[in-house]
Amino acid sequence: MHDNKTIMTGDLNSNLQCPIPKSDYEHVLLAHGGGGKLTQQLIEKMIYSRLGNEILEKGHDGAFLPHISSELAMSTDSFVVDPIFFPGGDIGDLAINGTVNDLVCCGAEPLYISLAFILEEGFLLDELWKIIQSIEKSAHEACVKIVTGDTKVVEKGKGDKIYINTTGIGRVVPGLRISPDNCQEGDVVIINGTIGDHGIAIMSERAGFSFESGIKSDTAPLNRMMQDVFARQPNIHVLRDPTRGGLSSALNEISQSSGKGITLFESQLPVTEGVRGACEIMGFDPLYIANEGKILVILPERHAGEVLGIMRSHETGRESRIIGKISGRHGGLLHLETNIGSTRIIDMISGEMLPRIC
Amino acid sequence: MHDNKTIMTGDLNSNLQCPIPKSDYEHVLLAHGGGGKLTQQLIEKMIYSRLGNEILEKGHDGAFLPHISSELAMSTDSFVVDPIFFPGGDIGDLAINGTVNDLVCCGAEPLYISLAFILEEGFLLDELWKIIQSIEKSAHEACVKIVTGDTKVVEKGKGDKIYINTTGIGRVVPGLRISPDNCQEGDVVIINGTIGDHGIAIMSERAGFSFESGIKSDTAPLNRMMQDVFARQPNIHVLRDPTRGGLSSALNEISQSSGKGITLFESQLPVTEGVRGACEIMGFDPLYIANEGKILVILPERHAGEVLGIMRSHETGRESRIIGKISGRHGGLLHLETNIGSTRIIDMISGEMLPRIC
Repeated sequence: MHDNKTIMTGDLNSNLQCPIPKSDYEHVLLAHGGGGKLTQQLIEKMIYSRLGNEILEKGHDGAFLPHISSELAMSTDSFVVDPIFFPGGDIGDLAINGTVNDLVCCGAEPLYISLAFILEEGFLLDELWKIIQSIEKSAHEACVKIVTGDTKVVEKGKGDKIYINTTGIGRVVPGLRISPDNCQEGDVVIINGTIGDHGIAIMSERAGFSFESGIKSDTAPLNRMMQDVFARQPNIHVLRDPTRGGLSSALNEISQSSGKGITLFESQLPVTEGVRGACEIMGFDPLYIANEGKILVILPERHAGEVLGIMRSHETGRESRIIGKISGRHGGLLHLETNIGSTRIIDMISGEMLPRIC
Repeated sequence: MHDNKTIMTGDLNSNLQCPIPKSDYEHVLLAHGGGGKLTQQLIEKMIYSRLGNEILEKGHDGAFLPHISSELAMSTDSFVVDPIFFPGGDIGDLAINGTVNDLVCCGAEPLYISLAFILEEGFLLDELWKIIQSIEKSAHEACVKIVTGDTKVVEKGKGDKIYINTTGIGRVVPGLRISPDNCQEGDVVIINGTIGDHGIAIMSERAGFSFESGIKSDTAPLNRMMQDVFARQPNIHVLRDPTRGGLSSALNEISQSSGKGITLFESQLPVTEGVRGACEIMGFDPLYIANEGKILVILPERHAGEVLGIMRSHETGRESRIIGKISGRHGGLLHLETNIGSTRIIDMISGEMLPRIC
């Protein structure tokens, strides 16, 4: 997917100095969103210099994408996470990984991403520059191209530093038919690792004890791992990333829309000691906490071993395991089989536990 | 493009009551963006009920789009206009028309739009409902489908009522090759009507004299008119919608990227008496004011008559006319031939005249 230019940048890990010198501008001004010279300077010096490719740099009202013949998937998300920098990531890689993973959950190979900033007047150009470099790195890792963009600026107090929208399109992998309606009695639910890390990383950063807790966001693009699965075992029924609302919301949505019951095994739920401890202190349940690098794979039990093997061969799936099954009873409900042998209904979250988690 | 459901709604002009009763919720809460029950209620009752179609209502992480075999165009824009309701439109139809017109400027037939809201806590659900109805109406008019979406809520004071991102994809019309680099000496510049209306409508609304001025935004989808042009005369070199930064920014960008000179004829620039008067009072130049229903068509002079005829046969192009030409001199610069016979350079806007105009 990468053009020469992207590969040639090479220095993806370097922390380059912001190309707009502080003596010119240190902060975002309203004029940076005015469509005139300052907008042009911001786009050329800060955006094209890191994210540029032959499609983006046409600088047209939109991007021209090469001929494609396929079913497509399209997904959009706005990112309003607070704080914008947190252990394990920032709003930039979150915005790329989030949309990449939504496309993966459609059984698609992510190809093109649009990138739209809403900047608050007074936001530090240095921080914007860090975020742009982080976007570059994550787009590179996920093998997607930023093809078109937009920059708006709102007055101080009408935003919060930076909001980002990414919208992606991808090629649906032929032969896959992913839909929540597809789940069947006897299917199993796989997750690729521990739950709650992203939400708790954000909360500890807000509460000021992220250093002590050491908990990092799990934000990561999952397309390489899942492309590998798609290529070798396309018999997958449902995919879902348990982001806002956590595992409980994702699985409740699936059980509601399929009319099937889902049972989770508490003993199998992977939760790190750190997240478990933080949840106890703050009074949260890891089942309701957002994840940003996790995927739920629902598929016939007979393929589970093979798919687990493929997933575990990737860094992002090292700790993949079966955490639940689709059951013939309790249609439309999510149950938890607890460690002490009882069963309880896990309802969807109704209020708001963690605002601006992504 | 329309599925039965969209056509059957029928009552596009009705001002229906908000489907979430005031006794439940009158304002947007943080929980409406939490990914739980309230998010689900908002999406189902307010969004699916008006914008629903068989693609959107799958309610997946992304949309599955039917098989397509084509070059595609993709465009994104965030809308942060203030005020959100203004004479001639609101942030809802602006968000649809803006992205539709950006796709048109790529020579594409707009097909699918994603819709992402960033809502401020405390925003009135009644106003959101009005905006959703306006989105429905404009999407219907432009024959595009809303296929996927996202809703985030930020705390009071961290946003301003509502920001909307729309990202669109369209099918590039075969045979068209639209690019700013294409303009040739001898080409003419056509515009489809008066300039400055949108920006001045917003400014008068802000200044509190919109009723007296009677100036309305020109926001409109231009795809029907331009599809007609594309079908009958594909020999078009450049298309551009003069939005933020107005005519001067759009034409300066074209002259810079093509290295050609552009001459505008002051005597031919269509400006209403109202806009002219308001500009004089407020000290603005209509050349720098944003438009939202205008398109610049640059093409060989020999085709101008035919294209003007087609454009004038549409409501959105009734007042189409030639306002300039591509010249062999002054490469990279935009000149104005004034009414008194002199010539002056029209530079790109550098500062910020009208923040949050779209």
